[in-house]
Amino acid sequence: MAGRLGLEVDFVAGDWRSGVDPMVVQTRLAADKAHRYKAVMVVHNETSTGVTSRIPLIREAIDRAKHPALFMVDTISSLASMDYRHAEWGVDVTVAGSQKGLMLPPGLSFNAVSDKALAASKLAHLPRSYWSWDEIIASNRDGYFPYTPATNLLYGLHEAIDMLLAEGLPAVFARHRRHGEATRRAAHAWELEILCRNADEYSDSLTAIVMPDGHDADIFRRKVLERFDLSLGTGLGRLAGKVFRIGHLGFFNDLMLCGTLCGVEMGLGLTGVPHRAGGVQAATLLKNATRLAWAAFRKSPPCVASMDRHQAASLPGLIDPRNRGP
Amino acid sequence: MAGRLGLEVDFVAGDWRSGVDPMVVQTRLAADKAHRYKAVMVVHNETSTGVTSRIPLIREAIDRAKHPALFMVDTISSLASMDYRHAEWGVDVTVAGSQKGLMLPPGLSFNAVSDKALAASKLAHLPRSYWSWDEIIASNRDGYFPYTPATNLLYGLHEAIDMLLAEGLPAVFARHRRHGEATRRAAHAWELEILCRNADEYSDSLTAIVMPDGHDADIFRRKVLERFDLSLGTGLGRLAGKVFRIGHLGFFNDLMLCGTLCGVEMGLGLTGVPHRAGGVQAATLLKNATRLAWAAFRKSPPCVASMDRHQAASLPGLIDPRNRGP
Amino acid sequence: MAGRLGLEVDFVAGDWRSGVDPMVVQTRLAADKAHRYKAVMVVHNETSTGVTSRIPLIREAIDRAKHPALFMVDTISSLASMDYRHAEWGVDVTVAGSQKGLMLPPGLSFNAVSDKALAASKLAHLPRSYWSWDEIIASNRDGYFPYTPATNLLYGLHEAIDMLLAEGLPAVFARHRRHGEATRRAAHAWELEILCRNADEYSDSLTAIVMPDGHDADIFRRKVLERFDLSLGTGLGRLAGKVFRIGHLGFFNDLMLCGTLCGVEMGLGLTGVPHRAGGVQAATLLKNATRLAWAAFRKSPPCVASMDRHQAASLPGLIDPRNRGP
Amino acid sequence: MAGRLGLEVDFVAGDWRSGVDPMVVQTRLAADKAHRYKAVMVVHNETSTGVTSRIPLIREAIDRAKHPALFMVDTISSLASMDYRHAEWGVDVTVAGSQKGLMLPPGLSFNAVSDKALAASKLAHLPRSYWSWDEIIASNRDGYFPYTPATNLLYGLHEAIDMLLAEGLPAVFARHRRHGEATRRAAHAWELEILCRNADEYSDSLTAIVMPDGHDADIFRRKVLERFDLSLGTGLGRLAGKVFRIGHLGFFNDLMLCGTLCGVEMGLGLTGVPHRAGGVQAATLLKNATRLAWAAFRKSPPCVASMDRHQAASLPGLIDPRNRGP
Repeated sequence: MAGRLGLEVDFVAGDWRSGVDPMVVQTRLAADKAHRYKAVMVVHNETSTGVTSRIPLIREAIDRAKHPALFMVDTISSLASMDYRHAEWGVDVTVAGSQKGLMLPPGLSFNAVSDKALAASKLAHLPRSYWSWDEIIASNRDGYFPYTPATNLLYGLHEAIDMLLAEGLPAVFARHRRHGEATRRAAHAWELEILCRNADEYSDSLTAIVMPDGHDADIFRRKVLERFDLSLGTGLGRLAGKVFRIGHLGFFNDLMLCGTLCGVEMGLGLTGVPHRAGGVQAATLLKNATRLAWAAFRKSPPCVASMDRHQAASLPGLIDPRNRGP
Repeated sequence: MAGRLGLEVDFVAGDWRSGVDPMVVQTRLAADKAHRYKAVMVVHNETSTGVTSRIPLIREAIDRAKHPALFMVDTISSLASMDYRHAEWGVDVTVAGSQKGLMLPPGLSFNAVSDKALAASKLAHLPRSYWSWDEIIASNRDGYFPYTPATNLLYGLHEAIDMLLAEGLPAVFARHRRHGEATRRAAHAWELEILCRNADEYSDSLTAIVMPDGHDADIFRRKVLERFDLSLGTGLGRLAGKVFRIGHLGFFNDLMLCGTLCGVEMGLGLTGVPHRAGGVQAATLLKNATRLAWAAFRKSPPCVASMDRHQAASLPGLIDPRNRGP
Repeated sequence: MAGRLGLEVDFVAGDWRSGVDPMVVQTRLAADKAHRYKAVMVVHNETSTGVTSRIPLIREAIDRAKHPALFMVDTISSLASMDYRHAEWGVDVTVAGSQKGLMLPPGLSFNAVSDKALAASKLAHLPRSYWSWDEIIASNRDGYFPYTPATNLLYGLHEAIDMLLAEGLPAVFARHRRHGEATRRAAHAWELEILCRNADEYSDSLTAIVMPDGHDADIFRRKVLERFDLSLGTGLGRLAGKVFRIGHLGFFNDLMLCGTLCGVEMGLGLTGVPHRAGGVQAATLLKNATRLAWAAFRKSPPCVASMDRHQAASLPGLIDPRNRGP
Repeated sequence: MAGRLGLEVDFVAGDWRSGVDPMVVQTRLAADKAHRYKAVMVVHNETSTGVTSRIPLIREAIDRAKHPALFMVDTISSLASMDYRHAEWGVDVTVAGSQKGLMLPPGLSFNAVSDKALAASKLAHLPRSYWSWDEIIASNRDGYFPYTPATNLLYGLHEAIDMLLAEGLPAVFARHRRHGEATRRAAHAWELEILCRNADEYSDSLTAIVMPDGHDADIFRRKVLERFDLSLGTGLGRLAGKVFRIGHLGFFNDLMLCGTLCGVEMGLGLTGVPHRAGGVQAATLLKNATRLAWAAFRKSPPCVASMDRHQAASLPGLIDPRNRGP
């Protein structure tokens, strides 16, 4: 995308099964004595693979390379589902959307912007109009928008944030962590492979599962949709036909996940995909483990995502930041 | 209720675990040479126990006793979930409601009435006004109501009937039968007892399960609600604390049932109720058996519930009976 | 209706253009030395005519006759649109519904009951079951219902009461009074006759207007519906074809009324009904008069309808009476 | 906007009271022998002034100048409210949105693109990604989108188009024409000036009215909102405080307009703006004139906007073009 806008992009190809390697970032930046890199861009939670990148480690890598590049993070499929801290983690630009963890239709996008990024934007030469920050920051100051706002989605956002804060962000994150863990246990029980290679990069909002050789993931998905009215995610790009994805984010509870895993297990049976039964059982056995995890989590210090305060600040009139935790 | 209206009621006490015994009906009616019984009243599907009564056999019992009593059936929790045939089964008055298999809020009630019942009502002495049929039958003739109608529920009914006919009543009934069977298999796997004693009286719209001695069903239910946001039915009357009920009627699919059964199984674990794990597994193993059953059902001759045509007739303007199957 | 229930009814025929005459009530009750009258039943706001009866004067008439009859009032089309005070006005049974001033679909009915009425009900011989108070009063004590409640309407009721209290009952009543007065001014300007004869019996929730001789009100209504998508009320019973009714109750504001009056005036033109133009103009001229009225009203002592507290009491769990004014 | 994107813009300043002058367009283009103008950009219906530009005359002006510039038209506040013909009028790019005449929330935008514009886009050098046509045209071919689509708005669009076609586009356009004419008659009766100078450039979707000197339009608007819950449009840019705008587009009928005009007239009175009463009366007198206009319109040949077919073509799967008129 940046390429189409005329920017020079140094795309670090990965293996589609691991997150961004902080060491690679550090090495490339350190080699760039002329500071030609303007920004390091990372996706926090990669929707097509279920792999997360460890944002704090990448920040450290940039710092160790003593490079002035901006740090930009896409949190579209992680915000409000997994812990994320724009200011604390030293991110310059965070991009998010309404249609995933915020449980709304698509139509709203959010930018959290550091002072450094704002200053850089004033010096940037790339022509832009709608994507420019100046006008919207000026309008937002009085609670307005420089163009027709999606008022109904803003009301929805208000409700969504109320729901998230009523549950408590730590509880929301623990819920998704529990669902991620349960889904992975089910996959292990089925003896199917999880696409994400490294346990510390597992996504809590979706899990991509590798289809055994000789079985087409899309035929399996179509059968499951048809027979159980369950819509699994397709494999994208080079993963087409090779993986299917189980989403477990947003307004989703334990029993919805159980129903989803049952649908997958029964679908594997219906389409003759070799697997061992008992995934649902494995997932439900989680309950003791996760209760301990949950209890532990609740005792930890509050960690309301700082992103959240930024959003609040950009929507005056709708959301009163005084209602928020620290 | 009839008692409170001043009628003399010969209530045939049952054991709360079986349906109405046709032989008892026949014996009592045969002994009533003076024809003092005016009506035989039966609940098709008993919501508090998950026991159905076999309506055609009771009709036969009345006929064998050569008794002129009216035959009245309550189908509130069975209509549109289980096969039922007002005319074909020789019922005089069928009562139904909007809030179960018709998937609507409560607020509409339906009466299907035979000519014999209509004639009897004209001779009846019990004072009545709102409950009288004359006025509504007269108004309905032109598509009106004698009082403010619940228009929004009538629109909802129109949609609900469209949904049922789009799926096809045989498929709707097969779906509930499958869910009933899966629930019972889960109970057997858990080694918990089903309240309904006789296999040919099992309900397809709900299943009541007996709690092991020394365990309070309501404590279990509260825990399940609190932990899994799953609301199970309470034991009513003499069954309070002794049973819990799993509803599987209306807009409900296989994976919702799977989620429900997972919630029950995890809840049994959480509250220390002795049971064997694997109920969900047992339920999902059904898939082959039920596919056979389903296939067989689809080949059987059409059996659109005749009740349905009666409803259609009582809602002119809204529902065109010509859209119906035979 | 009472007649059909086997009660002896002494129906005091009126002229369909006046409210109940307190003097007639007093005379009849005074003549009834044997106290055979069990109840005086009055409609507060008669939907078919737009005539109200003055409840406090009728109470005084009963008291002056020193008669023990219960006093029962139907407030279906007045509650929450016009001031009404169950306890203060000495009413024994007040009946109301959800579908008028409470702005909900039909489906909820309310009874406010005095201790005297409750005591009488325990001695009454008329067979009843659903209409009996005992069971519902017992269940309501714990926030429950003796049968499947219309939960969605109870949520709606909660919202409706919030809306009414947010506006303030005095403001709600003043708004309807203003709409009633504006509608009558429009009728006078059109030189059409208002059905209700006495100015102190005008309804604030609807106005019935008499069609000039030789013009069919229903043809006019049909034309207005077809051309302006405006549904006016039909003449009921002996008034069929002779009057049309303009409803101005519930969620209704000044400009909706203006639009309504424009539709009537244009419809009179389209159907050739003789009238003088300028009704809307007359109605809008009200603005000064009504502002004075409104201002005056606001200075008067608080008059939250006592009915409201009774409803609140009958819906524990949903409505907290502590939120109410005195 | 184009200027911010680095394009050189020859902005033809107008007087904010007239549409684009075809003669000016012709003169400038004729003088541009080097063909440096790449596009002529015009707003069909200017939301801030209530002035329309006559698209066919501008097309003729371009043709007379024999200039190859693309012709681009913004129809955001006119599409589906006023007659517009992308292909027949020789427009190269038409831009529209969901939030005006299509009666939806904001969130969808439409481009109708000629082959000439498509060819030009392939040669264009301005960097772009989201705004590029290639990807979406390729995806649309199979009924998909290259990014997360606003599915709920597409369902809404389906309904909106059904509503428009059920009424019939000629009837929709006649309705808005009637509302525009009625609003202007009201303004004349009030002796207030209409901002748009030329009768053949009046907008049918909104009317801007000039406030008499010494009166602040925004104070008037605030009072009307507060007192009548009627939200009038503010004056934008150099018109701030000097005009107010009455919108009459989308889902809007005669009586809503009457209510709106009553609110304006009463508001003028409340805020002491000098005016003559009787605007509403003048507007309603329209009824005969417009019925004649309507009748005449209905006899004219069908003129389903060609824009409509283009939209249909760009939304395969949702909208079947075979349901459309010619």
